[in-house]
Amino acid sequence: MSKQPLFERMALIGVGLIGSSIAHGARKHGLVKHIAATARSEATRTIVADQGIVDSVYETGPEAVAGADLIIICTPVGAFEAVAKEIGPHIAPGAIVTDVGSVKQAVIKAVAPHLADGVHLVPGHPVAGTENSGPESGFAELFEDRWCILTPPEGTDATATTKLQDFWQALGSRVEIMTPRHHDLVLAITSHVPHLIAYNIVGTAADLETVTESEVIKFSAGGFRDFTRIAASDPTMWRDVFLNNKEAVLEMLGRFNEDLSALQRAIRWDDGDALFKLFSHTREIRREIIDAGQETEAPDFGRPHGSETED
Amino acid sequence: MSKQPLFERMALIGVGLIGSSIAHGARKHGLVKHIAATARSEATRTIVADQGIVDSVYETGPEAVAGADLIIICTPVGAFEAVAKEIGPHIAPGAIVTDVGSVKQAVIKAVAPHLADGVHLVPGHPVAGTENSGPESGFAELFEDRWCILTPPEGTDATATTKLQDFWQALGSRVEIMTPRHHDLVLAITSHVPHLIAYNIVGTAADLETVTESEVIKFSAGGFRDFTRIAASDPTMWRDVFLNNKEAVLEMLGRFNEDLSALQRAIRWDDGDALFKLFSHTREIRREIIDAGQETEAPDFGRPHGSETED
Repeated sequence: MSKQPLFERMALIGVGLIGSSIAHGARKHGLVKHIAATARSEATRTIVADQGIVDSVYETGPEAVAGADLIIICTPVGAFEAVAKEIGPHIAPGAIVTDVGSVKQAVIKAVAPHLADGVHLVPGHPVAGTENSGPESGFAELFEDRWCILTPPEGTDATATTKLQDFWQALGSRVEIMTPRHHDLVLAITSHVPHLIAYNIVGTAADLETVTESEVIKFSAGGFRDFTRIAASDPTMWRDVFLNNKEAVLEMLGRFNEDLSALQRAIRWDDGDALFKLFSHTREIRREIIDAGQETEAPDFGRPHGSETED
Repeated sequence: MSKQPLFERMALIGVGLIGSSIAHGARKHGLVKHIAATARSEATRTIVADQGIVDSVYETGPEAVAGADLIIICTPVGAFEAVAKEIGPHIAPGAIVTDVGSVKQAVIKAVAPHLADGVHLVPGHPVAGTENSGPESGFAELFEDRWCILTPPEGTDATATTKLQDFWQALGSRVEIMTPRHHDLVLAITSHVPHLIAYNIVGTAADLETVTESEVIKFSAGGFRDFTRIAASDPTMWRDVFLNNKEAVLEMLGRFNEDLSALQRAIRWDDGDALFKLFSHTREIRREIIDAGQETEAPDFGRPHGSETED
C-alpha cells in the first residue's frame, strides 16, 4: 500500500470489465481497506473469489453495502433502478454512492429517489474500456491516462465530490466535472453514435446477398475490421445505453445522417473537391487525439504485422 | 536472395505506402533483379533514393518502364488514365502491367485502351495498408497474411496471371481471383463504405456547436477514436476511390442507411429486443475475423495501456 486508504469499505455492485478493473486498481494502489462485491451468478462469484481481487463476495446487495462508505454500481444501466431499490435502505449515512454508467441523466432519475438524506450521490463515468466483458477481462491499468467524468447533481456535498475525484485520480484517471445533461450529449457523439454505426455496418455486411460473409471476413483488412472491435462490446450494456440516452443519441444521429446525405450527394455528382476537403480535415483530428495522449501513434493501432503476428 | 528472381526489371509508377512496401518486400525476398521507380516530386525521389530500396528513380514513366517485364501502377486511381497514356507506347511486348488500386472496373476502363497487343493487363488490389501515406511509411511485411485480389479481364493470358500470383504469394499474400465487377462490390462494403462513414462521423463531431472539439478529443476513448484511424487515410487516394466506384458505393450506402433507419426506429420506440439481437450477432463476426487471421485478438487492438504507454 502506497498511501493511507481513502475508504474503509468499498462495495462493488456487479463485477464485469469495469468493476473488476476498479477492484484490481484499488488493490494495487491501496485505496480501500476492504473490497466487497456482489454478483448475481454463481459463475461470476467463483471467478471473483478465485482471482482474489475482492475480500468478500455476495449474491445480493444489502450484505455488500452494509457498513460501506463507498458504493459503486457497475451493472448495466437497465438494472440501476432495481439495484437502488434493493440497496437504498441499507446504506449508511455519509456514504458516497456512485456508478460507472455511460449515461447520467437517466441514472440520477433511477437512483436518487431510493437514497436516504445524508447519502451522497455522485454519478461517475470512466471513459475507458475494451471490447471484452466479464470479471476475467479487468486489469488495474484500464483507467490510467483516461478521463473520468463526474456529474454531481446540483446541491451535492462538495467534499464527497472531491473525495471521489481523489479516488479516480489515484486509479490514474484525469477527472472532469460537468452537468449530467452535457455529459449525455458529449458521450452521444464520442461514444454512443460511434457504437451504433459500428453495430450497424457490421450488421449490414452480414446481411448482404451479393457479397458472402466469408468474403466480408477475408477482405476485412480494407477497413471493415476496425468497426468490429466496438461492435463486439457487451450487448446488454449497449442496449441499455441506447434506451437510456434516447434523446441525445437521436439528435446526434440526425446530424450524422444530414452530413452523410451531403457526402452521398457529393459522390453522386462527382464533387471531388468537397470530398477532398472533408478527408483532409479529419486527418488533423486524429493527430490531436494522439497529441492528447488518448490514442497510440503506431500505424494500424500498433497491430502486429506479418512475422510479428501473435499466432 | 532466397530464390530465382521472378522478373528482370520491375517498374513502380508512384512510390507511396504501397509502392514502397512492394519495393521493400521484393528486395527482401529477391523477387526482381532491378527495381525502377517514378516519382513526380523531387522530395519523394530524394527519400526513395536515400532509402536505397530501388535501383533507379525517374521523374517520368517512359524511362522507368523501358525494358521492364513487370509494371505496377501505384498512383491514386484518378491519375491512372494519364499514366497509361504516358507509359503505354514504351512498354515492351510480353510485359505484365498491374496496379494496386482499390477499384477495378474503372481502372480497366482507364488503362486497357492505352496498352498494345501482347502486353498483359492483370489488375490487382492488395487489401492491406495503414493510415500512413508516403514512401517513408512502407515496410516489407505489409502484405504478409493479407489477401491480394487479382481481376484479369476475360481473355487474359493465364500464364501472366499465374506469374503475378506467384509474385504476390512471394510477398506473403494469399491471392484470390474474381471479376472486376464483383471486386468493386465486395470492396464497397468491406472498405469504401467503412471509410466513408468514418470520415463522416469525424466530420460531424468536429462541426457540432453543443460539444466542443476539445471535448471530442478528450473523451474519444469512448469509441470515437477507433474511427479516426481510417479517417486519417490519404485524402487524394480516397477521393479517387469514391469517384471511381460510385455505383457500388451508393448501392451499399443505401443498404447501410436502410438498416440505420431501422435501428433509429428501434431506439425511438424502446425496442430493446431488436437492439440486443443485432448487438449479439455482430460480436460473432469479429470472432470469425480473428479466427481467419485478419485481426489481432488482443483487447483494444493491443493498444498500450497505462504504464506501458509508448510515450
